[in-house]
Amino acid sequence: MSNNKIIDLFLNPKSVAVIGASKNPMKGGNRIVDNLVSNNFKGKIYPINPTSEGELFGLEFKKSVLDIEEEVDLAVFYVPNRAIPHILTECIQKGIKGAIIEASGFEEVGEKGLELRDQILKITDNFSKIRIMGPNCMGLTRIDGDSNGKDNAKGGLFTSFGVFYKYKTGNVAIISQSGMLNGGYLMYMMEKYPDLGIRYSCSIGNKMDLSEIEFLEYFIDDPTVNVIAVYLESFKDPRKFIELCKKARKIPNKTIILVKGGITSQGQKASLSHTGSLAENSQLIKAIIKQSSVIQARNFFELFQFARTFSMLYREKIIMPKQGNVALVAGSGGVGTISADLIVEYGLKFPNLDESIYNKLIEIFPEWMPPNRFALVDIWPAMEKAMMNEINPGNIVGSVYELLLNDDKIEGILNMMFCSSRFRTFNNYENVVDHINNHSKPIFFWLIGEIREIRKVSQLLNEHNIPNFPSLEDMIKNFWILVQDSKNKNKS
Amino acid sequence: MSNNKIIDLFLNPKSVAVIGASKNPMKGGNRIVDNLVSNNFKGKIYPINPTSEGELFGLEFKKSVLDIEEEVDLAVFYVPNRAIPHILTECIQKGIKGAIIEASGFEEVGEKGLELRDQILKITDNFSKIRIMGPNCMGLTRIDGDSNGKDNAKGGLFTSFGVFYKYKTGNVAIISQSGMLNGGYLMYMMEKYPDLGIRYSCSIGNKMDLSEIEFLEYFIDDPTVNVIAVYLESFKDPRKFIELCKKARKIPNKTIILVKGGITSQGQKASLSHTGSLAENSQLIKAIIKQSSVIQARNFFELFQFARTFSMLYREKIIMPKQGNVALVAGSGGVGTISADLIVEYGLKFPNLDESIYNKLIEIFPEWMPPNRFALVDIWPAMEKAMMNEINPGNIVGSVYELLLNDDKIEGILNMMFCSSRFRTFNNYENVVDHINNHSKPIFFWLIGEIREIRKVSQLLNEHNIPNFPSLEDMIKNFWILVQDSKNKNKS
Repeated sequence: MSNNKIIDLFLNPKSVAVIGASKNPMKGGNRIVDNLVSNNFKGKIYPINPTSEGELFGLEFKKSVLDIEEEVDLAVFYVPNRAIPHILTECIQKGIKGAIIEASGFEEVGEKGLELRDQILKITDNFSKIRIMGPNCMGLTRIDGDSNGKDNAKGGLFTSFGVFYKYKTGNVAIISQSGMLNGGYLMYMMEKYPDLGIRYSCSIGNKMDLSEIEFLEYFIDDPTVNVIAVYLESFKDPRKFIELCKKARKIPNKTIILVKGGITSQGQKASLSHTGSLAENSQLIKAIIKQSSVIQARNFFELFQFARTFSMLYREKIIMPKQGNVALVAGSGGVGTISADLIVEYGLKFPNLDESIYNKLIEIFPEWMPPNRFALVDIWPAMEKAMMNEINPGNIVGSVYELLLNDDKIEGILNMMFCSSRFRTFNNYENVVDHINNHSKPIFFWLIGEIREIRKVSQLLNEHNIPNFPSLEDMIKNFWILVQDSKNKNKS
Repeated sequence: MSNNKIIDLFLNPKSVAVIGASKNPMKGGNRIVDNLVSNNFKGKIYPINPTSEGELFGLEFKKSVLDIEEEVDLAVFYVPNRAIPHILTECIQKGIKGAIIEASGFEEVGEKGLELRDQILKITDNFSKIRIMGPNCMGLTRIDGDSNGKDNAKGGLFTSFGVFYKYKTGNVAIISQSGMLNGGYLMYMMEKYPDLGIRYSCSIGNKMDLSEIEFLEYFIDDPTVNVIAVYLESFKDPRKFIELCKKARKIPNKTIILVKGGITSQGQKASLSHTGSLAENSQLIKAIIKQSSVIQARNFFELFQFARTFSMLYREKIIMPKQGNVALVAGSGGVGTISADLIVEYGLKFPNLDESIYNKLIEIFPEWMPPNRFALVDIWPAMEKAMMNEINPGNIVGSVYELLLNDDKIEGILNMMFCSSRFRTFNNYENVVDHINNHSKPIFFWLIGEIREIRKVSQLLNEHNIPNFPSLEDMIKNFWILVQDSKNKNKS
């Protein structure tokens, strides 16, 4: 079977046996079946437990996979690791082609775990008889519909023992060696960024057999995926990884973001006790990351924030910046100064405005406070002038955007927006969104002000896929990664 | 008059004349009087406007300061800059000793502004007849009571034209060349961090006369101030600045945090059009910052986050870490790996546990998954063991803290806490807080989970001055600055 066919079997099985299914809602084997059923998995589900009788969520318990008459594509194991060899043998006998093993206690615990691994290698004949995802993982998730969609649009494949309750389908795929990114942290991020759409979430754990390589290859070819967010503690096959990243770079609407754990020796010690990953040479790690030319995130927060930014912009078919020429619109001089410093630090620049554009901009400003000749617009004096002339200051922002976006050099706009229910006249949000929707350059917002108003504005912007950030530096950094990605795409 | 006497006059005036007071609530001159009155300024307030009749908030309008019979300490100007020379002359004639000038249009607008400045220099005889704060500023604020305190505890001096509605008094003083940090952004931060107590907020603007130097000197001597948060676009007197910072280093419960704007040439161009600050040599800037050995923040968000951390720990008289030996408690191996990498990057370390401590820790853990020998505790297996033995897993966190804190080497604990209303048994928050309150080492939290639950837990921790953060790296960075500060304090 080709790699993509194997992964397809894992992501789109027609039938799933849940080994270790349980009536006890405190057990993971109960929650896996619950997740499959309540999220409308379209295929067959078989709860397996030799000591259980009757039904679970309306599905009849079987003692063993051998008691199932129909064909079974995938087995999800939620049993203690000692029970695995025997059950795996039965799965092979039944002709099941894929198994997800969620139990821990393998490479990461030393000798005993290694013995168990050797046993599995023998039983599966080096994974030629059945392919394995895990062990020490949180399963995989495929999201077809939104949790709050109309007509119960929920749908997909949910094999994690964590409970997913609020989610949205979208263009992001996750491959992670930390189950937290497929479980608790992912759920947190989906609540924090309710418009972040996730297509797949794959917890590869110790990657005894299947690894980042097979999933990466699949997602690069999958047109529903634009953004691939990866957390690795080790590289299974550095050469292949670099090759795949190179392939992804040739696809205009595909971006890979990587967090690499275990870069320092302290990190590698930690990783050994987590996924049993052996120490890698830190020079080699750096060389792999450099050659793969992926977007590197420093931590989980950045990973998801970057993924969200790319996800939003790809959905809106925004033209990505290539040179890093950006404009800033803010109502504070101090913000202008700090932004200018940060912009330089990130290798971006505020270009000088076209003469014709500047001549139009100057008209909006009072004589006593003309705008800068470079693309850093302190909009406050222009608003004051508008008010003096009894013009709605809320319209000024739109006019300034219009001018800046018409300057060919400027590849995007960064904005500070003060969100206040008392000063809504200064920020006609709907108007701003209309202006942005008519353009294909990225426009980012940093929101400050009243917390409640910020939430409201953020929600509005999210609905229109307009990236918005809680801090100035986050906004600048997220613009910078777009330029990074464009430069990477230009590499051979 | 000594510097401190002058600043005392500005911060604690017995009477204030508001020049440009207005009945129109859209005008700044109206809001200044409103802020003074509604926040219970204890001294006399005189609204001044040659074209107004009657009363404003129950206070009689005067045409000029010369019409006031009593002595006046301070004049707050909210008038167009052209009107300033004439009124300033009257203030001097009246014997007023201090003036806050909020209007802009001076050094930052070029030649005309410079002429106006020269005129003021002449009128004031180089500020010997009256001292000036500003121009181009948001005034100053002294907070004596909380906005939601009992028995209308509100109190202080509020001379900004921005409206302050939610605030708390505390041990932080702000000195800023960006009015935003004394206005909109400050209000945002006070809402975001409701337990962040602010003692003073001084907007020094173009610092034509009074600058960071005089305020810094005052706050270093003021025992109500522990943390001084500073934003500068230029150094008025580098030598004096370094000397004052050196003096502050000798005070155990005093920390200065600085954001310097205009470090790059692009930043300096921006700063010139903001506060008229002239370009400084970037090597020189670096040397000044290095010699002053203050905590440097990269941006406004960090400035306030760092200020909040120090503020909380000083209030609780926490023993600051000196070596950077820290422990991490988390329920995720991936977090452990990434934390270990970040810890190394910030120059901190997870020390090896004392043999006796380790021997006790190992008892809490299951045999199949013993803890690390170094201070990185993946607490999940211990919780699983507790549950198997029908012990409340919520008690495990407390026991682990107890052990770690008893290891003399360990100077503080970093925690990942998963906040979930469904899994409250795993985190007995009250219990955790009790444990922490019995210790004098810093204990930090990174909160993830259900947004609503995070807010609840964050509020509880805030009430006990326990620093908590929205991201892992923020948590680590904020621990790192404590170590930085201790090292700075050890310098001569």
